[in-house]
Amino acid sequence: MIEDLVDRLRLLRTPGVGPVTFRQLFIRFGTAAAALAALPDLARRGGGKAPAVRSRDEAEREITRVERLGARFLVLGQGLYPQLLAELADAPPVIIAKGNLNLLDKQCVAIVGARNASAAACRFARALAYDLGQRDNVIVSGLARGIDTAAHDGSLETGTVGIIAGGIDVFYPPENEGRQRALYEHGLVIAEMPPGTEPRARHFPYRNRIIAGMSAGTVVVEAAPRSGSLITARLAAEAGREVMAVPGSPLDPRAQGCNQLIRDGATLVQNAADVMEAIGSISARVRSAPSPYQPPVEEFHDDDALGLVEGLLGPSPVPVDEIIRLSGASSGAVQMALLELDLAGRLDRHAGNRVGLRTA
Amino acid sequence: MIEDLVDRLRLLRTPGVGPVTFRQLFIRFGTAAAALAALPDLARRGGGKAPAVRSRDEAEREITRVERLGARFLVLGQGLYPQLLAELADAPPVIIAKGNLNLLDKQCVAIVGARNASAAACRFARALAYDLGQRDNVIVSGLARGIDTAAHDGSLETGTVGIIAGGIDVFYPPENEGRQRALYEHGLVIAEMPPGTEPRARHFPYRNRIIAGMSAGTVVVEAAPRSGSLITARLAAEAGREVMAVPGSPLDPRAQGCNQLIRDGATLVQNAADVMEAIGSISARVRSAPSPYQPPVEEFHDDDALGLVEGLLGPSPVPVDEIIRLSGASSGAVQMALLELDLAGRLDRHAGNRVGLRTA
Repeated sequence: MIEDLVDRLRLLRTPGVGPVTFRQLFIRFGTAAAALAALPDLARRGGGKAPAVRSRDEAEREITRVERLGARFLVLGQGLYPQLLAELADAPPVIIAKGNLNLLDKQCVAIVGARNASAAACRFARALAYDLGQRDNVIVSGLARGIDTAAHDGSLETGTVGIIAGGIDVFYPPENEGRQRALYEHGLVIAEMPPGTEPRARHFPYRNRIIAGMSAGTVVVEAAPRSGSLITARLAAEAGREVMAVPGSPLDPRAQGCNQLIRDGATLVQNAADVMEAIGSISARVRSAPSPYQPPVEEFHDDDALGLVEGLLGPSPVPVDEIIRLSGASSGAVQMALLELDLAGRLDRHAGNRVGLRTA
Repeated sequence: MIEDLVDRLRLLRTPGVGPVTFRQLFIRFGTAAAALAALPDLARRGGGKAPAVRSRDEAEREITRVERLGARFLVLGQGLYPQLLAELADAPPVIIAKGNLNLLDKQCVAIVGARNASAAACRFARALAYDLGQRDNVIVSGLARGIDTAAHDGSLETGTVGIIAGGIDVFYPPENEGRQRALYEHGLVIAEMPPGTEPRARHFPYRNRIIAGMSAGTVVVEAAPRSGSLITARLAAEAGREVMAVPGSPLDPRAQGCNQLIRDGATLVQNAADVMEAIGSISARVRSAPSPYQPPVEEFHDDDALGLVEGLLGPSPVPVDEIIRLSGASSGAVQMALLELDLAGRLDRHAGNRVGLRTA
């Protein structure tokens, strides 16, 4: 098992291998070891150089570091990995968690919102988190200033999970160090990036997909238009989860994001009872926890398919389904061709299962 | 024509003849005169005494009084009677209007809300009415305190219609006398009750159905749960019109009615552009102004049907369609039997085309 984790980390930390590519490789090759062995050949066939695979040594050092931090890896498709998160097409292949892992067994509800929220909204978020906690929900948020902080504070006693954009041992914003340490003790902290990673702007949308993906529903409390909270809401909607928003007066600029969400179809919620009613249908979905990876399909390379797929691709993203349809090749052959282009550094994967040729 | 108005008023002001009974009588008999002539026989067949038909003299006095007040009658199915209002199953057979009748030719939008609304909400309502007026809408409201008053004030220059629960010459609340007089001059005032009628509690829901019925959509600005504004919203929804509500913070008790409306499916609106977008589909409905009364069907009485219908009715309201189905009689025969029971004072008509036997 530890060998498998080493291989998964080597594959995942290899430049150019994101969660979707990782999943495709797993579908084709069944194990990380087999995928690693196939990488050079795949890249060569795709017309590029073999990617710089992360060394065994580096992977082992990361594992040791995580252990020393008192954290542990959760592997997609195994054990304690959050079931709802595993449903995402771009679910993180591995996450790092520190704290009370039992919380992963309960229904999670995300509460997110503005960092510069009003005092009234923060009080509201804290009370909502408390009330939802009393109803046996675990609260998920992003350990940011404002609404996130209020949501964690309100649910610290009943169960709260902080998803952070940087490494599991990095405190951001600095003033939340005490709060993050409290979550190590009484809650749970989850990171996707390796320990020591300082959070950068591009990490936050990844963090947001975990918040939305772990949760049966996401409640937005005060959010500006075009804010990160609205990204989280969109990701929740794409994942088929309940999107909820707390309304406000049109005269209050901080209410505009939430009001717009409601206009776009989010459920208006005013209290914990409204939230429970809204997520009722989602929590009723019985999940039989299927493995997110199917057994490997027969490995085959199809030069005709590769040529066809390459010819059909341009810089503009197109849906993979359309490539399959236009090429006339089998789905398996097209996916393999895409993998080869991907690992050769010639493919960009976009949201909504769309792909395009990478431009220099 | 004046003879016809006299007959319509005699029929309409006869105790026990409401708008629905009036419509049924018209469907059967084609003219008010023919319906008046048939009343005694119908009531007798229904097992009651003939209703005390309003005298010709009284009807003529009402007409003279309305004329002296500088007001005029608008008759359902004729001329200037508001087209959208005519679509209601319980459209008033006659309304009394004083002011600028040209306003009835434009698209109407209702703005309603709490009498004890916050100053901010009143300011919002006034600005919304102004903005909608600038976009060529006529604003309809109820000339009550609070939101209604603000809506009229914001649209006085572009076009505003006040629907009042009492007579066209009665000022309620008293402090709005100046405003109502201003609407006589620059807007329009509409009343369903005869001149001199002091408004009573039961009149306000009737007034509300005219507000909702005349308008392509109804916007609710601040409303308590179980308030008259929510009745107006329900009536608008039942009439197939757009229901819109302005949201507010869950921490503000005065926002709860509107937030609940949005939860129940009303469109969240924050400004005039949102309102225009919402009512776009309704204003696009081309109406060819069909007469609301079909030509009279062959008059017939069916003693078997009357007995069957009587046997099927109890004090609990049941849908007319169910009576037709259970009786096995024709729709026309059942409607006639109901009319006979109605005019005999033995039937109660309820919302949603349901009927029940009147209990002593």
